[in-house]
Amino acid sequence: MIPTLYFTFLLINRKVKYEQTMTATMTEDRLSETFAALANPMRRAILIRLADGEASVNEIAAPFDVTLPAISRHIKVLEQAGLVTQGKRAQYRPCKIEASPLKEISAWTEQYRPIWEARFDRMDDYLQQIQDNPKENSK
Amino acid sequence: MIPTLYFTFLLINRKVKYEQTMTATMTEDRLSETFAALANPMRRAILIRLADGEASVNEIAAPFDVTLPAISRHIKVLEQAGLVTQGKRAQYRPCKIEASPLKEISAWTEQYRPIWEARFDRMDDYLQQIQDNPKENSK
Repeated sequence: MIPTLYFTFLLINRKVKYEQTMTATMTEDRLSETFAALANPMRRAILIRLADGEASVNEIAAPFDVTLPAISRHIKVLEQAGLVTQGKRAQYRPCKIEASPLKEISAWTEQYRPIWEARFDRMDDYLQQIQDNPKENSK
Repeated sequence: MIPTLYFTFLLINRKVKYEQTMTATMTEDRLSETFAALANPMRRAILIRLADGEASVNEIAAPFDVTLPAISRHIKVLEQAGLVTQGKRAQYRPCKIEASPLKEISAWTEQYRPIWEARFDRMDDYLQQIQDNPKENSK
């Protein structure tokens, strides 16, 4: 009885660990996909356009000096990263920005805020020191 | 005299415009380079390690199941993106995190905050509405 229970426990435990690992890996991959999608000025420009409101592929392409297929490929990358969704209506399929992956990027970046703020604090201290003792520092 | 002045003005104007374009392009490329460097779970893990303090390539590699050359290549990508600097001392060349590109990423992402917050505001409104009129919504 006890060995059977223990074996069941081990199996469940292994399944939970596997699922935790898979979830962690999927989140990691999703972050990588978002970062990769954003690593292109044209795709970032498309997102800025969509932040103003929904737009068709033609409307998105209008201000850019690139072909429609090129714009479509960029939109496809943004869609795969979950940053853009496209409507399903037959005639007019507007693209819409989805900000939740950007929220994840923001949360990831925030963990480093203490580092860049510490750097600027040190710079502030240094500038304050120069102002307080101008002669001391110009020696 | 006036044509010469006008020509000089045009030249200066063109140079200024060119420099503005170059600066904008360089900032754009720098953002792309940062995003591309972050689009890899191993490189993000290295940054998290370095957020705890400086470390040599060997120290960085220790917890990972990868070869030293592989870690070195990832560090090289992070260095090229300005996210890591390496000390110049002959024996011990510790790697150090540089957070200013992460600050730029954070600032870029922040412009979309109103979009994701609006989405959650709408969700809050909806949940509030369900709580206020449970029967209304369960019909």
